[in-house]
Amino acid sequence: MHGDMIIRITKYYRILHKLKSLGLERVFANNLGDAAGVNATVVRKDFSLLKIIGQKRGGYEIDNLIASLDKILGKDKPQEAIIVGCGRIGGALMRYRGFASDGIKIVAGLDINTHVCDEQECPIPIYPLEQLEEIVKKKNIQVAILTVPEQEASDLFRRLCEAGVRGFLNFTPIGLKASKDEEDKHIIIHNVNIALELEQIFYELNISDNHML
Amino acid sequence: MHGDMIIRITKYYRILHKLKSLGLERVFANNLGDAAGVNATVVRKDFSLLKIIGQKRGGYEIDNLIASLDKILGKDKPQEAIIVGCGRIGGALMRYRGFASDGIKIVAGLDINTHVCDEQECPIPIYPLEQLEEIVKKKNIQVAILTVPEQEASDLFRRLCEAGVRGFLNFTPIGLKASKDEEDKHIIIHNVNIALELEQIFYELNISDNHML
Repeated sequence: MHGDMIIRITKYYRILHKLKSLGLERVFANNLGDAAGVNATVVRKDFSLLKIIGQKRGGYEIDNLIASLDKILGKDKPQEAIIVGCGRIGGALMRYRGFASDGIKIVAGLDINTHVCDEQECPIPIYPLEQLEEIVKKKNIQVAILTVPEQEASDLFRRLCEAGVRGFLNFTPIGLKASKDEEDKHIIIHNVNIALELEQIFYELNISDNHML
Repeated sequence: MHGDMIIRITKYYRILHKLKSLGLERVFANNLGDAAGVNATVVRKDFSLLKIIGQKRGGYEIDNLIASLDKILGKDKPQEAIIVGCGRIGGALMRYRGFASDGIKIVAGLDINTHVCDEQECPIPIYPLEQLEEIVKKKNIQVAILTVPEQEASDLFRRLCEAGVRGFLNFTPIGLKASKDEEDKHIIIHNVNIALELEQIFYELNISDNHML
């Protein structure tokens, strides 16, 4: 499945929940398309690829659609992640409230300093880095947020891959790349480079000022 | 200029600085292309669009190239930004060291609570939100990082636009959109939705497990 399709499905999923909360029971491809900003044909094609079939009279039952998407997106399974590196950014993410509303739970932090975070402030346990492999295996962790210093990123990425982590949200400026072996295991990496994002905004503004846009 | 081209130019720029620090004086389009992961033809086309001309013997003088890109990217001007909302994420970004190495300076924070950040820990002044317009104008701020609660995002976005801010790095889950008027002023918005990024990693893993990828 293409990344664009995953983003569209995420949108349909959120829209469906909103429609359901408004009391609707049925939805048509063109309504979903309008709300998601795509053509109805795209919606029908996406659902057909996912083997989701509409009703004979046209449209889809919202409850059935949500149940199908729950399964496709894995919303029926626990979505648990760990944070590796509990410094400034990692520490802020440990206390971030936006995850819970999306059904994501941060179950542990890992850091060289397990006292990096005030216990009263931070309800998530922090373990020493030596216990990384143990925690990943014991808690069956699939996804890690990487917020360690630049020079430790590659090494910890390898260790996490070997321990069984397959999804990474990488906040370090290092562009992590799965090795040939890891590619076969479908390692998924999303990079969030905050400084680069900010830099590009400055560039775009400058270029727009020089009428090059 | 297309967003992809800006990303490529950022890459060339970083590679050129690395080559210069290694003592190189000249570079060829195919070297730059290899390092940036694009074809040499793309490099030549990018530079030709930017009116950067190579040497007769082929290749480019690294110093001249850096000077041209400095001007195109606005690196010769101060790159100053403010952080609006100094809570968990905003507070972490105020102390983030990755900006300085990219020549970006966070000059002020704004929050309803100006004591949100321990003065010893945080060397950047925090002003009350009522002074937003004043600070933007006095410091001639073009770029803002938005790390406020969801419900305050739209309102503060409007106020910042009206005060003259034209570039936004938006960490709130609200998808900010420039109004018709603001589009004419070339408002640039980059959204970083951390929960959505993490959610999509879970989806991709689940879909890959179900052999749908």
